[in-house]
Amino acid sequence: MPEMLTGIALANPDTLKYVPEYNLIYRADAPRDDKVSVIQGSGSGHEPAHVMVVGKGMLDAACPGDVFAAPPMEYVLETAKLLRSEKGVLLLVNNYTGDRMAFEMAQELAEAEGMLVKTLFINDDVAVQDSTWTVGRRGVAGNFFVMKAVGAASEAGADLDDVIRVGEKVNSVTRTMGIALTACTPPAKGSPLFELGDDEMEIGVGIHGEPGRRRAKLASADEIVDELLGAVVPDLPYASGDEVALMINGLGGTPISELYILYGIAHRKLEEKGIRVWRSYVGEYCTSLDMAGASLTLVKVDDEIKGLLEAPAEIAIRVF
Amino acid sequence: MPEMLTGIALANPDTLKYVPEYNLIYRADAPRDDKVSVIQGSGSGHEPAHVMVVGKGMLDAACPGDVFAAPPMEYVLETAKLLRSEKGVLLLVNNYTGDRMAFEMAQELAEAEGMLVKTLFINDDVAVQDSTWTVGRRGVAGNFFVMKAVGAASEAGADLDDVIRVGEKVNSVTRTMGIALTACTPPAKGSPLFELGDDEMEIGVGIHGEPGRRRAKLASADEIVDELLGAVVPDLPYASGDEVALMINGLGGTPISELYILYGIAHRKLEEKGIRVWRSYVGEYCTSLDMAGASLTLVKVDDEIKGLLEAPAEIAIRVF
Repeated sequence: MPEMLTGIALANPDTLKYVPEYNLIYRADAPRDDKVSVIQGSGSGHEPAHVMVVGKGMLDAACPGDVFAAPPMEYVLETAKLLRSEKGVLLLVNNYTGDRMAFEMAQELAEAEGMLVKTLFINDDVAVQDSTWTVGRRGVAGNFFVMKAVGAASEAGADLDDVIRVGEKVNSVTRTMGIALTACTPPAKGSPLFELGDDEMEIGVGIHGEPGRRRAKLASADEIVDELLGAVVPDLPYASGDEVALMINGLGGTPISELYILYGIAHRKLEEKGIRVWRSYVGEYCTSLDMAGASLTLVKVDDEIKGLLEAPAEIAIRVF
Repeated sequence: MPEMLTGIALANPDTLKYVPEYNLIYRADAPRDDKVSVIQGSGSGHEPAHVMVVGKGMLDAACPGDVFAAPPMEYVLETAKLLRSEKGVLLLVNNYTGDRMAFEMAQELAEAEGMLVKTLFINDDVAVQDSTWTVGRRGVAGNFFVMKAVGAASEAGADLDDVIRVGEKVNSVTRTMGIALTACTPPAKGSPLFELGDDEMEIGVGIHGEPGRRRAKLASADEIVDELLGAVVPDLPYASGDEVALMINGLGGTPISELYILYGIAHRKLEEKGIRVWRSYVGEYCTSLDMAGASLTLVKVDDEIKGLLEAPAEIAIRVF
């Protein structure tokens, strides 16, 4: 963890700063009093989320916990204090019990110090209602769309209430479900987190290897997409005439070539339903260490959301 | 393969076109007579190279063969003909015997049809002098720097000779070496391409799983970086006072968190040698299906190369 964060900081010497005590990566030009500071923490092991998406137009800071563990409350509190801004601080939290506890407590303590600070929960995973680590739905790869929209709005100078409105709006039209073909192996454990036969897949898997809806025999890419769209599309629901952003997110161990295969199949099936794909997102966003698998996210877009998603962003991960 | 290429085309409907007969992905606005057309082929299984890096400022077209196989000569010839430009066509070829045969023959036939077409070979891999599939050094992840420079020069309107000069210049100052922790599994074979014990690594591995310099016991990240820098740095050599671009390229199955760990260690060790890291590249560029491992590339930069590497590019793979 410190080695990874050191690497990120060294790779981005002009734009990022690193505070080892709190696993804290933040924008070199933050905080600014004319801009809401946006912070996200959650556990490590999901990279590029969230330490690699700190930068202009995205997060102002990330303060992850250990692998698959919520950050300690002090990390969040110290990060919020360091990023204190006249316009306020927004804490983005994927909905897991441990993360909620740490962020809500940090919010209370920061408020007690007179800070303007709010929390926004993300819960895009349709797989299960309650899960191993949550009451209610989990936050998974769809959190990227909330981060991007909130980052763009805060960059444009929106006040805290409006930044929250935008984030809640995007969360409310975002739905995700994933499948795993293999388990992941946390370094501290040294062995796979769960057992999955060579010919099996976990449908609706969580990004910490939590169980999903059911285990099934390995299926073709076409059947996998049917399974994912069958869960995601009726949930909002997404309907004929809608425009959507479509994300195929790799869970860590799946080659990008296979992600594009899933993308092409999903794109065609959506168009057949009369749902127009406005913009594509294919790659690794929110991973689960070295897990083989993928998730599919849909976001129903309108002109406001399109503008926010298209706004420029400059973050650690880039192609060139 | 066709499913992946279909996915890439559907994900980029405004900017890319797809011709299934030749595995051909090309820029929707190409060819242009005021710009040299830049084409690269090589085998599939190395994605994002090369079909996902077609776009403004990079390749004009890619026409890959099957997994780990050179494209058939007709693919290259038809691609060159379709991309014919008054300013000429440049074929970029990673130095493998099969690729050289296909591209050189296509070049001859295109010239016989009166086209202006040249070939440029890339051979950045220092691991071995001759290898399973090459006479001379292999072309590996360092080819991204040649593509980027050549793409920028051609976009700026340079003539064919100058584009080649730039490409040869970048190739001449680029060196790479990789290590593998696991083998990769080509879909057509269905089993790993070679055997590597859980506690072993292949030092100097090729991107098709070809043997490198030797097999060794699994080592720490620090020792791995020493091994890679120990091969790459003295080869050019890179010396105190030099400025370099540093790339840590994932071979497909290695989480980006681990790539940043290697990056940080390499960055520090280079600075200790007085070699200044000017710009970082961390992620998957030239992969080997699902192989776990990484390669390290150095490029010695001057003002001309910096300008070319920093020029804007718009390609299929992007974060947002």
